Amino acid sequence: MTTGADQTAGEAAGVNASVLHGVKDLKIERRSLTSPAPSEVQIAVQATGLCGSDLHYFNHYRNGDIIVKEPLTLGHESSGVVTEVGSAVKNLVVGDRVALEVGLPCSECELCKGGRYNICKEMKFRSSAKAFPHFQGTLQERINHPASSCHKLPSNVSLELGAILEPLGVAIHGSRRAGLKPGSTVLIFGAGAVGLLCAAMCKVSGAQQVIIADIQGDRVDFAIENKFADAKIVVPMKRPQEIEEKLAFAKEVAELVKSASSIGEVDAVFECTGVESCLQAAIYSTRPGGRIMLIGMGSPIQTLPISAAALREIDLIGVFRYANTYEEAIKLVSSGNPLLPDLAKLITQRYKGFDGIPEAFAMAGRVKDDEGKLVLKVLVDTA
Amino acid sequence: MTTGADQTAGEAAGVNASVLHGVKDLKIERRSLTSPAPSEVQIAVQATGLCGSDLHYFNHYRNGDIIVKEPLTLGHESSGVVTEVGSAVKNLVVGDRVALEVGLPCSECELCKGGRYNICKEMKFRSSAKAFPHFQGTLQERINHPASSCHKLPSNVSLELGAILEPLGVAIHGSRRAGLKPGSTVLIFGAGAVGLLCAAMCKVSGAQQVIIADIQGDRVDFAIENKFADAKIVVPMKRPQEIEEKLAFAKEVAELVKSASSIGEVDAVFECTGVESCLQAAIYSTRPGGRIMLIGMGSPIQTLPISAAALREIDLIGVFRYANTYEEAIKLVSSGNPLLPDLAKLITQRYKGFDGIPEAFAMAGRVKDDEGKLVLKVLVDTA
Amino acid sequence: MTTGADQTAGEAAGVNASVLHGVKDLKIERRSLTSPAPSEVQIAVQATGLCGSDLHYFNHYRNGDIIVKEPLTLGHESSGVVTEVGSAVKNLVVGDRVALEVGLPCSECELCKGGRYNICKEMKFRSSAKAFPHFQGTLQERINHPASSCHKLPSNVSLELGAILEPLGVAIHGSRRAGLKPGSTVLIFGAGAVGLLCAAMCKVSGAQQVIIADIQGDRVDFAIENKFADAKIVVPMKRPQEIEEKLAFAKEVAELVKSASSIGEVDAVFECTGVESCLQAAIYSTRPGGRIMLIGMGSPIQTLPISAAALREIDLIGVFRYANTYEEAIKLVSSGNPLLPDLAKLITQRYKGFDGIPEAFAMAGRVKDDEGKLVLKVLVDTA
Amino acid sequence: MTTGADQTAGEAAGVNASVLHGVKDLKIERRSLTSPAPSEVQIAVQATGLCGSDLHYFNHYRNGDIIVKEPLTLGHESSGVVTEVGSAVKNLVVGDRVALEVGLPCSECELCKGGRYNICKEMKFRSSAKAFPHFQGTLQERINHPASSCHKLPSNVSLELGAILEPLGVAIHGSRRAGLKPGSTVLIFGAGAVGLLCAAMCKVSGAQQVIIADIQGDRVDFAIENKFADAKIVVPMKRPQEIEEKLAFAKEVAELVKSASSIGEVDAVFECTGVESCLQAAIYSTRPGGRIMLIGMGSPIQTLPISAAALREIDLIGVFRYANTYEEAIKLVSSGNPLLPDLAKLITQRYKGFDGIPEAFAMAGRVKDDEGKLVLKVLVDTA
Repeated sequence: MTTGADQTAGEAAGVNASVLHGVKDLKIERRSLTSPAPSEVQIAVQATGLCGSDLHYFNHYRNGDIIVKEPLTLGHESSGVVTEVGSAVKNLVVGDRVALEVGLPCSECELCKGGRYNICKEMKFRSSAKAFPHFQGTLQERINHPASSCHKLPSNVSLELGAILEPLGVAIHGSRRAGLKPGSTVLIFGAGAVGLLCAAMCKVSGAQQVIIADIQGDRVDFAIENKFADAKIVVPMKRPQEIEEKLAFAKEVAELVKSASSIGEVDAVFECTGVESCLQAAIYSTRPGGRIMLIGMGSPIQTLPISAAALREIDLIGVFRYANTYEEAIKLVSSGNPLLPDLAKLITQRYKGFDGIPEAFAMAGRVKDDEGKLVLKVLVDTA
Repeated sequence: MTTGADQTAGEAAGVNASVLHGVKDLKIERRSLTSPAPSEVQIAVQATGLCGSDLHYFNHYRNGDIIVKEPLTLGHESSGVVTEVGSAVKNLVVGDRVALEVGLPCSECELCKGGRYNICKEMKFRSSAKAFPHFQGTLQERINHPASSCHKLPSNVSLELGAILEPLGVAIHGSRRAGLKPGSTVLIFGAGAVGLLCAAMCKVSGAQQVIIADIQGDRVDFAIENKFADAKIVVPMKRPQEIEEKLAFAKEVAELVKSASSIGEVDAVFECTGVESCLQAAIYSTRPGGRIMLIGMGSPIQTLPISAAALREIDLIGVFRYANTYEEAIKLVSSGNPLLPDLAKLITQRYKGFDGIPEAFAMAGRVKDDEGKLVLKVLVDTA
Repeated sequence: MTTGADQTAGEAAGVNASVLHGVKDLKIERRSLTSPAPSEVQIAVQATGLCGSDLHYFNHYRNGDIIVKEPLTLGHESSGVVTEVGSAVKNLVVGDRVALEVGLPCSECELCKGGRYNICKEMKFRSSAKAFPHFQGTLQERINHPASSCHKLPSNVSLELGAILEPLGVAIHGSRRAGLKPGSTVLIFGAGAVGLLCAAMCKVSGAQQVIIADIQGDRVDFAIENKFADAKIVVPMKRPQEIEEKLAFAKEVAELVKSASSIGEVDAVFECTGVESCLQAAIYSTRPGGRIMLIGMGSPIQTLPISAAALREIDLIGVFRYANTYEEAIKLVSSGNPLLPDLAKLITQRYKGFDGIPEAFAMAGRVKDDEGKLVLKVLVDTA
Repeated sequence: MTTGADQTAGEAAGVNASVLHGVKDLKIERRSLTSPAPSEVQIAVQATGLCGSDLHYFNHYRNGDIIVKEPLTLGHESSGVVTEVGSAVKNLVVGDRVALEVGLPCSECELCKGGRYNICKEMKFRSSAKAFPHFQGTLQERINHPASSCHKLPSNVSLELGAILEPLGVAIHGSRRAGLKPGSTVLIFGAGAVGLLCAAMCKVSGAQQVIIADIQGDRVDFAIENKFADAKIVVPMKRPQEIEEKLAFAKEVAELVKSASSIGEVDAVFECTGVESCLQAAIYSTRPGGRIMLIGMGSPIQTLPISAAALREIDLIGVFRYANTYEEAIKLVSSGNPLLPDLAKLITQRYKGFDGIPEAFAMAGRVKDDEGKLVLKVLVDTA
């Protein structure tokens, strides 16, 4: 993998970028952009979904332990149109519509060569401040990007859906690691965009029953109404403090799961909230030999009934981003699979242009918009 | 596993059975039947599908290398109603409708304990002459059977569909061994009942594209019309003699596959014919790293382009009957999964009562019936 | 699986049994014993290792959540000699020396049929008070046991080693679930009998480097001297109270691991202590994509840096007892594999006869005996 | 992956190369060599093992279907010393001793990204004429090669052993695909270099019993004497013509296997000959549920008792070269694992300098040399 993305020769043009300089301090700036390197293409970014990590950076100028060290352009769920192709590029031409895979692994370590490039230690990921200098995000008019990480969209897939392929990749990767089989019963904690995408992947993998749980009744209703899930649980809003109360509450939630299931025990849980009580409840809800997928990023330290997992061989499986998912994602969204819910419905609010970005971030932090519509995925349209 | 199935204490009653005494020599006989043993139930068999191995026994009084050594009742794709329960049985009551799992493994060998009981060397399988004394088949008014091998049908699953669960188990087992993933392209050789059930399993497992191939145009049309498959190939009726011609023909078929695919290469082939040219074509049709499932029983000795498989790491995976498939099968047929074709349509001809059995076997050997209707699965109704 | 173990017809003889009636209240009692049932053998128990769960019952008349409800014979790591065979038994004759597999699963549920009988919900396990009536343990002169759960010992395997096969099964099951490969670096927390057996399994599986960690310097020295491990860590005896201090300590231990490794990162951890700080340190010590095997039973509730696992796809894999391990265990101990340490050395103290059992339990709770010898596995000889 | 290996800028020097111009027509020629590209190193090739495919090119100017289209330098089992490093190289310095991984996959296709780069369709492999222009082999004084495909040797691994790591990779890849477990019984067909390396990998993976079969008694004796295998079979030199005789012979060989095994059935076969009768015998020798690894390249078309495999779920698993094996290979040969036979003994004849190459090829085609010593691996020393 070349490491020179964006560090190209050729004459530089000026493009607009949305740049974060501090807490909630976004500026529109001009950046110079050269022609793409031989193995790159230049892309006019047109649709970008905002994600929880973007929001963290926006609100805190950090994301967990990762502190921003230089002005940072956000955005990594993106699609766009090819405007220029590098001299060595064979798979794309100007005008192609593409989804961007924004993580560039080293391609040379044992993990990369073994097919697990998502956990490559040298990964550079757009809009993340983990590596320095930061690999700038996609909220920029045009960017240069390796052609091999640009996935061409078929004509029946919109650019908006193209932007959804990134979080869909997380759901695909999670469902692969879950080893999902037809006939399974699956429980999803969290009815936000990622949880709903996981639910969708479970449906197309043949899951017999998808139960979705959230503290927001509106969200689980959305899931049911739009065929993401078959059964729902509205988790009560309790905040127990002591561990005994917490575990009692988790067991209570597990009882709700039991009541919600019309078939039987839960084979796999997709934990998409990062909330301690959800993981606790997940452990109590899963059948012996089942799997819990750790997808949500939330409390980094959690107190867990670990014996209740270990003694029943319930495995806790990490899911970090995705590897090799774009081909499958594109096939799925272009397929007309009747079990696939309409993913476009996940895009609940749209903002136009660079001027709209601050407002988009404000909205991304809300549960509902002014009209009472759920906020699932906020999209920035920079076409 | 108790080995005393049908060898029970208690007073014996008389029941009708259809018994094969030689080539095409079926007699209706009275057999004595005791009460079920403590762990058994007695079942009034009501629906039995006829399968290729039944037909072989009927036509040749043997099945490949296996020669019949004593009069044999055929039938193993069956469902019925519980009429009496053994003293130790807890999971069933009189009146329950059940599908019969007719293979009784030893439960004690390493394969059984390791979850692969289908290849247990001590397996006793109803209607098979492999073990001696033969384990008699299900074409009998009532039989005693271990309760743990009787799978209760939900109210929305008919007894006819209950009889289909046995061949569906082969398709489930095959799809598990194939490691099918959403988005895959699958090729099925053979549009008979087993091939169609494999196609159905691929659909519900999220296969993006199922291509079905057969020499009978009507069969592949049936598959397409009834949503078992997305694309079809009518394989030309050639019978090349020399190996070079055979392989040339196989490559020709592989070209047809390529043309039929609207997406890309074939990830997995389900070879359900047992015909040499199909397996040859399967090898040429599969992508590097793909899998070929060996399901059809046909020519035991085949000349194969084995290097074309090995050099591209295309694995040839055996599929023998099934293990642990009934739960999944029942969930599937009772689910309302929109991707599951209507499996009842596979039952193309029905015969009533013991008197109809010879006619049923005659029909099972045909491609079409007198009205021009395809013969896929012939069912004997002994209710 | 018959459930009538020990509940047999035939004339009853009297045999001595060691029976626990309350905390540290062991009595020698006469129990009646009939002839074995058709599928059972009668065994003169000769060697029984004491295990942590036995010790818990002895010291507390309970084991975690499981409370003893009727007098209970302990012991489940046992071997003996066949003294009588049931009428249907074919694999054993009087005089055969056998290792006892003391868990009897239902053999009929999906987990049993799928090869994971160790987590069968209906499992009856000798000396455990989980099921009621309790399935009595092996510290009894003679017992009746299903012949299919008695594994014949080759002549070069002593009865003492035969008793070790039970905990060795845990190590085999753990190493299978770990997917160990030649060349790996493995870390073992806990240099007690189970930890050492896990280390041994890693060696014979081709692990390049086994690092063993314990707070007892003598134990890790034992591991190194006896070729169970290649490198050692003596974990400092700190008892931090606050979570920040705890995690700082865990990171400190992870640094010790790093220093101890001469090759590279840790591919898999076998956590055999059940101690929170060990699992915390395990998470910090493992490479991205590695696995942590949860083997030790200790604190049921633990506060864990779960994101540090999930974000690097370090999976937490439960290991509960074993399934299908006796054949492999017997092959291994009879093999002369130069990488297999001398497992007989794990038996550090021996007690003779039923009178010696209370003293044996007292010793099993100590770290060293009066002569300063380590206490790893205390054996009761009832020959 | 850059495709520009050897096509570098910088000033060109002259180096000697051994170039094949036709059947057995080797010439020593001067080739120009520039400085290495930024991501490459320049290596003085010092040790090169000759392999069967080299020999085919030498003897026939083709290899199976692959025809040489321009003068071709052979050699791909090589090690050497770094003499110059490209500007972007970080992992190597001048003087480092390295083993060369000579296959350069595209790094961008689904197979590469999924960890199966060995079957990448765009693979360029030194000394193979498959791609055009041919990617020239290693029998050249110095070559430029991507630094990421040069694996540094520890000081206790000789350059000769470094050259062995390439075929050892095939054995590692095969043993991974076999899913070998401690305690297994393995059968190896072919006691040449690859068969012996497979045997060695089985030993270090914990195989209880390795049975080696060959038509050459001396070879299997070598295997036993040098601890590669535990039991041997000298396969009779029959050449049956008719398929019935062939299969009868294969069953005869399977009986020899049965007699040779002191433990039990064969769990896995490594077929390293490519000979039809060996694969036939492999099918008859394997236990139900076992695996046959297709490693040897020989007859591309074989007549096989395929039902005997399929009905017992014996899988035929392709093994093509290797992926991600060098790290493990280096760990193994530097480890002092007492189960690893002395791999240096595989190098049975050595030839010095470019002048010795024709003689080396002549020797590589023989079974024994003039002194009666077996020919296993012929090495060319160009230091």
